[in-house]
Amino acid sequence: MKVTVWNENRHEQTSEEVRAVYPDGIHNAIASFLKDGHDVRTATLDEAEHGLTDEVLENTDVLIWWGHVAHEEVADETVEKVKNRVLDGMGLIVLHSGHFSKIFKTLMGTGCDLKWREADEKERLWVVNPSHPITNGIGEYIELEKEEMYGEHFDIPTPDELVFVSWFEGGEVFRSGCTFKRGNGKIFYFRPGHETYPTYYNSGVQQVIKNAVNWAAPADRARPVYGKAQPLETIKPK
Amino acid sequence: MKVTVWNENRHEQTSEEVRAVYPDGIHNAIASFLKDGHDVRTATLDEAEHGLTDEVLENTDVLIWWGHVAHEEVADETVEKVKNRVLDGMGLIVLHSGHFSKIFKTLMGTGCDLKWREADEKERLWVVNPSHPITNGIGEYIELEKEEMYGEHFDIPTPDELVFVSWFEGGEVFRSGCTFKRGNGKIFYFRPGHETYPTYYNSGVQQVIKNAVNWAAPADRARPVYGKAQPLETIKPK
Amino acid sequence: MKVTVWNENRHEQTSEEVRAVYPDGIHNAIASFLKDGHDVRTATLDEAEHGLTDEVLENTDVLIWWGHVAHEEVADETVEKVKNRVLDGMGLIVLHSGHFSKIFKTLMGTGCDLKWREADEKERLWVVNPSHPITNGIGEYIELEKEEMYGEHFDIPTPDELVFVSWFEGGEVFRSGCTFKRGNGKIFYFRPGHETYPTYYNSGVQQVIKNAVNWAAPADRARPVYGKAQPLETIKPK
Amino acid sequence: MKVTVWNENRHEQTSEEVRAVYPDGIHNAIASFLKDGHDVRTATLDEAEHGLTDEVLENTDVLIWWGHVAHEEVADETVEKVKNRVLDGMGLIVLHSGHFSKIFKTLMGTGCDLKWREADEKERLWVVNPSHPITNGIGEYIELEKEEMYGEHFDIPTPDELVFVSWFEGGEVFRSGCTFKRGNGKIFYFRPGHETYPTYYNSGVQQVIKNAVNWAAPADRARPVYGKAQPLETIKPK
Repeated sequence: MKVTVWNENRHEQTSEEVRAVYPDGIHNAIASFLKDGHDVRTATLDEAEHGLTDEVLENTDVLIWWGHVAHEEVADETVEKVKNRVLDGMGLIVLHSGHFSKIFKTLMGTGCDLKWREADEKERLWVVNPSHPITNGIGEYIELEKEEMYGEHFDIPTPDELVFVSWFEGGEVFRSGCTFKRGNGKIFYFRPGHETYPTYYNSGVQQVIKNAVNWAAPADRARPVYGKAQPLETIKPK
Repeated sequence: MKVTVWNENRHEQTSEEVRAVYPDGIHNAIASFLKDGHDVRTATLDEAEHGLTDEVLENTDVLIWWGHVAHEEVADETVEKVKNRVLDGMGLIVLHSGHFSKIFKTLMGTGCDLKWREADEKERLWVVNPSHPITNGIGEYIELEKEEMYGEHFDIPTPDELVFVSWFEGGEVFRSGCTFKRGNGKIFYFRPGHETYPTYYNSGVQQVIKNAVNWAAPADRARPVYGKAQPLETIKPK
Repeated sequence: MKVTVWNENRHEQTSEEVRAVYPDGIHNAIASFLKDGHDVRTATLDEAEHGLTDEVLENTDVLIWWGHVAHEEVADETVEKVKNRVLDGMGLIVLHSGHFSKIFKTLMGTGCDLKWREADEKERLWVVNPSHPITNGIGEYIELEKEEMYGEHFDIPTPDELVFVSWFEGGEVFRSGCTFKRGNGKIFYFRPGHETYPTYYNSGVQQVIKNAVNWAAPADRARPVYGKAQPLETIKPK
Repeated sequence: MKVTVWNENRHEQTSEEVRAVYPDGIHNAIASFLKDGHDVRTATLDEAEHGLTDEVLENTDVLIWWGHVAHEEVADETVEKVKNRVLDGMGLIVLHSGHFSKIFKTLMGTGCDLKWREADEKERLWVVNPSHPITNGIGEYIELEKEEMYGEHFDIPTPDELVFVSWFEGGEVFRSGCTFKRGNGKIFYFRPGHETYPTYYNSGVQQVIKNAVNWAAPADRARPVYGKAQPLETIKPK
């Protein structure tokens, strides 16, 4: 499968602390554990067309999205192209603060707001849908020693499937693994991954992202036809 | 309740055939059967701000939307305002060719395409969710002697609730009554109502729209808080 | 509305500790805050037919169910009658350890198992569906100083609507407010209410149960007909 | 994969007309097109333990179920065993009049009733979920020249996913392809297959059943633990 990992890649330029955790950028950290089995490339905000040219998008089966401080800098034309590819069947995995990205918000139709706190809190992501393929190989929960807290209410449409619910040390919960279908595309939102924590080195988090890539792959499927329809043979004579 | 019926009101200006069916416009035909029990006003495309000023929107509990040939003429600013009101709790009932309106598409996140044919076909709208309040007073189905056909696949997200499925004489089916929540707003898409047929005079169709207005009314409800969260009392000392 | 509160009423007979909290039984504690506005009666396991005669069931719009140690003593005939009433439109609110009752399990079709711990843990029930009428008047969450923990995975079918998710001090989460439709009946499962804690005196818990009674009331609705169908008029001649 | 095709196999014994269509029984007709790629066996009502011994069930990944006139003759013990296997992860495909089988009804929790008519009507099964893997290789619809009509309302819980909706010549519609999860098991209800028509020789119907077998296969997955829970490390000291 052809996977493109998109990263805003700004924190890595401006923060020593983030660079210490992800010296090659979050995109390369994610790409590295997907390379075994997939054809993986990366793309970042500051590349031409944000690295998401027509040619790249046409050759992407599943797109992974990480963004945070520069959502507004992503060109509307690119968002439109990515959206069209999702509706046409490309899988999309939106990570952490990508909840506020233009692409996620336009596919959801809601504000996508939530509650947050940076306080080095423990997070446990509990499996609430244990027969879902995205949980393959995961135990009852994934534990992250320190993460940013995201709390309910998370302003999204009702997910098609709820896979994980997070517990946070400070007293909040969050629907942290949610699937959605839009057009022919499958979308998975996965909460963890604040830039100052080594979350993408966690083997459980990696396993979920690997599973999600497999789950979100474009499917062989029925091909509907839209628009003006010819009369089927039984239509009554006029 | 305060109900605003919005109509593009273009066919009525240009087509003798449509004017014969709806001499006062589709908006007034719908408003007339809602007036008993609600505070109803109408608004149309060619009014200033399409008749949807801030003051009107602030004073609307449920907005009904009919549009067809001029979706592109609705200003993006108005669409944005309507969307924000829906997310804040205003009910929205989208009728027939409103499936392709900007407001419906932006709330759904999908293409909202479908299959259609104008061939004077009989339509039966079967109740598939008989305990839903939108079916109150409806028998097993509503029958319309002649309607435009809409056929699957209808490119929408999975509805939160499926209430009606239509049968058409020519051989197609359609999910013709669908509910969605977006933010705090309830949305009902209801298929019938081609401009050349007297559909909005049908008592079953009128009953469904009346029920839907009651169902979509803004609810008393919990009030979530978004954004940066204060530590709750149990947060661990740092 | 006619509400029947059913309680196993065994802990109250055998435990001094429980009697200290609910001297008149859990059923009367619940009945007392519903009496303002509803016609409320109670029924308990040790009454004839468990207090659920045909006459009582016929005159019940919403049934509330609390059971724990004696699920197996509920007669299968009674369970069958209650199930038939639910399918016919009676609302059902299942509380706490009622997750393992015969009536809940037969309506769900699954094992309904979960994880539990009695350790005087704080519980926060977060609203995840703030426009749902069951959350009317609730803030962002309900906090209970001490409760029994219930943890995921909760082995139920995917709820039609998820309304509350609980956080527990010890590190678990739970889908603690879930709606289901079965036949024409609406079902709400609500987690809190261990017999040794004063949970049913909490104003938030009371508000949710009041809201749920209103939500679960039998609706005016469509009346489907089942079985052998007469040919509709368009059926082709043979 | 190990597939068991269960058939009541009574019409084939008593009806010349059915025997003419399915000389080796419906079970063998279905088994024959699944044999390429799967390890397939058959089982029938009149075998010892209905052919569903512990050994057979333990060695079945996906069970296909066809029954009609003898639902009541299936032993409750067998139904209980099959249910437990489904909850443990075995896939289940319920065909046509199996909607009234004990196993389907106990997994659904509802009456599972519907409307029917035997009048040699044309059926079109329209795809309403074109990116679902069960539609792989199917065009926009499957057409069956003559079938028994099944009409709404179909008294089932809201399906997790709706895949097909049928159109019938006489004027009815039906949710004819529905998925459900119960415990760890995936269930697919698929409507067509009246015993007097050659439905299971239709290539589209065969393709759907093949797809459904693949879809319903037991998944690698998370393994929840139920019952009394040990304190996690953060539980507060008492």
